[in-house]
Amino acid sequence: MTPKHPSDSLTVLTDLVLPSETNPLNNLFGGELLARMDRAASIAARRHSRRIVVTASVNHVAFNRAIPLGSVVTVEAKVSRAFNSSMEIFIDVWIEDRESGNRTKANEAIYTFVAVDEMGHPVPVPQIEPETELEKSRFDAALRRKQLSLVLAGKMNPHDATELKALFV
Amino acid sequence: MTPKHPSDSLTVLTDLVLPSETNPLNNLFGGELLARMDRAASIAARRHSRRIVVTASVNHVAFNRAIPLGSVVTVEAKVSRAFNSSMEIFIDVWIEDRESGNRTKANEAIYTFVAVDEMGHPVPVPQIEPETELEKSRFDAALRRKQLSLVLAGKMNPHDATELKALFV
Amino acid sequence: MTPKHPSDSLTVLTDLVLPSETNPLNNLFGGELLARMDRAASIAARRHSRRIVVTASVNHVAFNRAIPLGSVVTVEAKVSRAFNSSMEIFIDVWIEDRESGNRTKANEAIYTFVAVDEMGHPVPVPQIEPETELEKSRFDAALRRKQLSLVLAGKMNPHDATELKALFV
Amino acid sequence: MTPKHPSDSLTVLTDLVLPSETNPLNNLFGGELLARMDRAASIAARRHSRRIVVTASVNHVAFNRAIPLGSVVTVEAKVSRAFNSSMEIFIDVWIEDRESGNRTKANEAIYTFVAVDEMGHPVPVPQIEPETELEKSRFDAALRRKQLSLVLAGKMNPHDATELKALFV
Amino acid sequence: MTPKHPSDSLTVLTDLVLPSETNPLNNLFGGELLARMDRAASIAARRHSRRIVVTASVNHVAFNRAIPLGSVVTVEAKVSRAFNSSMEIFIDVWIEDRESGNRTKANEAIYTFVAVDEMGHPVPVPQIEPETELEKSRFDAALRRKQLSLVLAGKMNPHDATELKALFV
Amino acid sequence: MTPKHPSDSLTVLTDLVLPSETNPLNNLFGGELLARMDRAASIAARRHSRRIVVTASVNHVAFNRAIPLGSVVTVEAKVSRAFNSSMEIFIDVWIEDRESGNRTKANEAIYTFVAVDEMGHPVPVPQIEPETELEKSRFDAALRRKQLSLVLAGKMNPHDATELKALFV
Repeated sequence: MTPKHPSDSLTVLTDLVLPSETNPLNNLFGGELLARMDRAASIAARRHSRRIVVTASVNHVAFNRAIPLGSVVTVEAKVSRAFNSSMEIFIDVWIEDRESGNRTKANEAIYTFVAVDEMGHPVPVPQIEPETELEKSRFDAALRRKQLSLVLAGKMNPHDATELKALFV
Repeated sequence: MTPKHPSDSLTVLTDLVLPSETNPLNNLFGGELLARMDRAASIAARRHSRRIVVTASVNHVAFNRAIPLGSVVTVEAKVSRAFNSSMEIFIDVWIEDRESGNRTKANEAIYTFVAVDEMGHPVPVPQIEPETELEKSRFDAALRRKQLSLVLAGKMNPHDATELKALFV
Repeated sequence: MTPKHPSDSLTVLTDLVLPSETNPLNNLFGGELLARMDRAASIAARRHSRRIVVTASVNHVAFNRAIPLGSVVTVEAKVSRAFNSSMEIFIDVWIEDRESGNRTKANEAIYTFVAVDEMGHPVPVPQIEPETELEKSRFDAALRRKQLSLVLAGKMNPHDATELKALFV
Repeated sequence: MTPKHPSDSLTVLTDLVLPSETNPLNNLFGGELLARMDRAASIAARRHSRRIVVTASVNHVAFNRAIPLGSVVTVEAKVSRAFNSSMEIFIDVWIEDRESGNRTKANEAIYTFVAVDEMGHPVPVPQIEPETELEKSRFDAALRRKQLSLVLAGKMNPHDATELKALFV
Repeated sequence: MTPKHPSDSLTVLTDLVLPSETNPLNNLFGGELLARMDRAASIAARRHSRRIVVTASVNHVAFNRAIPLGSVVTVEAKVSRAFNSSMEIFIDVWIEDRESGNRTKANEAIYTFVAVDEMGHPVPVPQIEPETELEKSRFDAALRRKQLSLVLAGKMNPHDATELKALFV
Repeated sequence: MTPKHPSDSLTVLTDLVLPSETNPLNNLFGGELLARMDRAASIAARRHSRRIVVTASVNHVAFNRAIPLGSVVTVEAKVSRAFNSSMEIFIDVWIEDRESGNRTKANEAIYTFVAVDEMGHPVPVPQIEPETELEKSRFDAALRRKQLSLVLAGKMNPHDATELKALFV
């Protein structure tokens, strides 16, 4: 399969924060943002693989800024690295000021999806060739995250996690 | 106020068709698509005016193609022309084939929004300078639609609707 | 097929404006009202044709009055004119004052539906015989709207749109 | 306060059964129908009292017929009897056959609402004068239901529930 | 079939009151609570019978306390008595104070479910053996409610409703 | 503040998988499960702290098993460790077989919440004293996860992450 660029899977989901999606502080509910990011990430994974895709894991999501009711929220998802049948999706979330139009980073998240056939069995996906500096840095970090995930799940010996180990020794 | 280009307000809302949004033929409900386009159009109107905006009218929506459950739907909204405090928003809706990745036009729609202050009173908005051929053609047609709307509402004498009249005589 | 009266398809949908359906000004969201009108109109079209029906177009919707949170909203839909397999549905939206009980017109809309068989192919529908003055006036205007729609879509020569042309010359 | 007729509060809510409202047998969820009836009943109670109203109890709901996905459901609610500040609302639910247009009774329900002021304190409401035979029969039965409710709640001695007692002795 | 205890079917549904579920007084909508109780009760009925279950009736629901936006609401459902193929489910609803953690009873409700096979035909369910005093008292009262329901539906002669009659004579 | 046990914050959310919550394979949507877990976790954090709480991060979620439409899903959330004003919540998700009643682990997740005052400023929370073996093991691992999170965010030197480093050297 021909490798693809992260930009090939770029998915943009711009939408409002509606009253039904807010918590008691009148900010976007964490759970609602998680669901919105899941939908955008699943489309990016599908654009990369052209397959049915299912969420395999959510690796890390930091909620750095509250997102108030009425905000315009832009969720941008791109495949950052592909393994055999799994894809790491990097998601950036932006809000914009109504009066100035300035965009601020609200949070970021990393999801992993797996491409499957109609029976739900994993199928191979194209590899990723990063282009920008940011894409390269995320591509490299994706391997460390993959190792970390395997170590924490007891599926890899920490001493074999060479990329990750280098951080600590 | 400095005029703006249609591309300054471009809003992209890519999302899935979920089971809760389908009709008995398993296609996206007309009403749900109308609501999704309204949200995208309101963001475009807000990006153009940097004001609170409210839906004033839906001028025309043609549902040319059914959009099946599970589709990836991209709604793209841009301000096509601005009048005093109102903005015409042109919305293109695309679906993409999962296997080939090809995009097909599913339908298009025209909404009108008005910019208002905190009390709900209309406020002026920047004018539009179209750039591409398509934007110019939509900009010109917007005036005919405006005249048509005024004529149908009994607020303009058909003989003064010069742009529109030219179509028929 | 025996012609029917508009009153045969009258559909009344009275419901509340819930908090999940409001915009930042605490009024009913345009998109939500569009969805509600679409459901009522589809029932009217189905009562007229006794067939599966799908939304073909939204011809015009004017949002004249904001509808505040907690309002009682009545959507009334009736078939105003039938063509071969398509039906124009005229929708009136009313709100009522809680203390006085008075009804006020909030907006009106025109949707077009097509009757289809199980495969999605258009099927013929009964004609309309208007009874009241308002029904007759809407019946006549429906033909002009049909011609306008065909002209704007490039499917009819403006000079053949006799009813419509009469407005301008 | 001038008494009112049940027809003064008649509320009609005709709507579709959407896929998001169905149970695993593809019929309308009991809970969704309960919610829809609650909204229609609250509007009827508000039309009778012209006050803020809150649900006080659901007296009895029998689900006699399953309501399949895609059905047109008509919920009709009317005040059947008023006490000091409470109102009994009788709700009839109909479904109609798409091809024949025939209506069938799907179920009925009885809700009680209380009229309150802005602070949530009960306020008096007009009395009911039933007109049709059915309204009169429901008006009479409402008193027995009221007594039964008080007896079951331990707020009335069974021997004082004269209307109810007459059923058994 | 081996009898079961009410505790075998205990179902706990703890969840928040979200903004989309509130009425104009900012309290949980009656209809939303009815739907939530229906889902919890259906799980309890399914745990007792290990069958598909459908709502047969709502026998009584008293809304004693308003439940404000942001509350933590706990719905607890248990089968209180089983008849041939029907089960009475008793539902207790609690809210808890955020600062003290104290639980308060908000309301209770009684639903009846029927166990059915894949074709929707009723099938037998295990009997109930109550254990606690409260369970025994609810078990006994269930028979009176069953008789009352049959009497009110005209399916039992009041004089044969021995348990119920004993209340009045 | 007196330390608390994980069991003090145990929150159980048992609910059905409704049609509106499923993906094209007819399984529970990843995003919907993320939202449900967020609500349960926020209640556990609130029960521990008796404060307003907001989602700070989602540390890891593995979707090990698809959860089909109609399943009964039990989400169990408990505070596993408390730091100054933040709490790690461990969430176990179970599904149960309708016929046998057996429970199977579907997935687990770790969320972090922060307790805040009315202005959104962090406030201290009680510490955790684990009781069971599983609680102790999760309590210990929480410190490694906290260090890992700080290292990955560039807020802690890897060499100071003593607990975490021990895994690799």
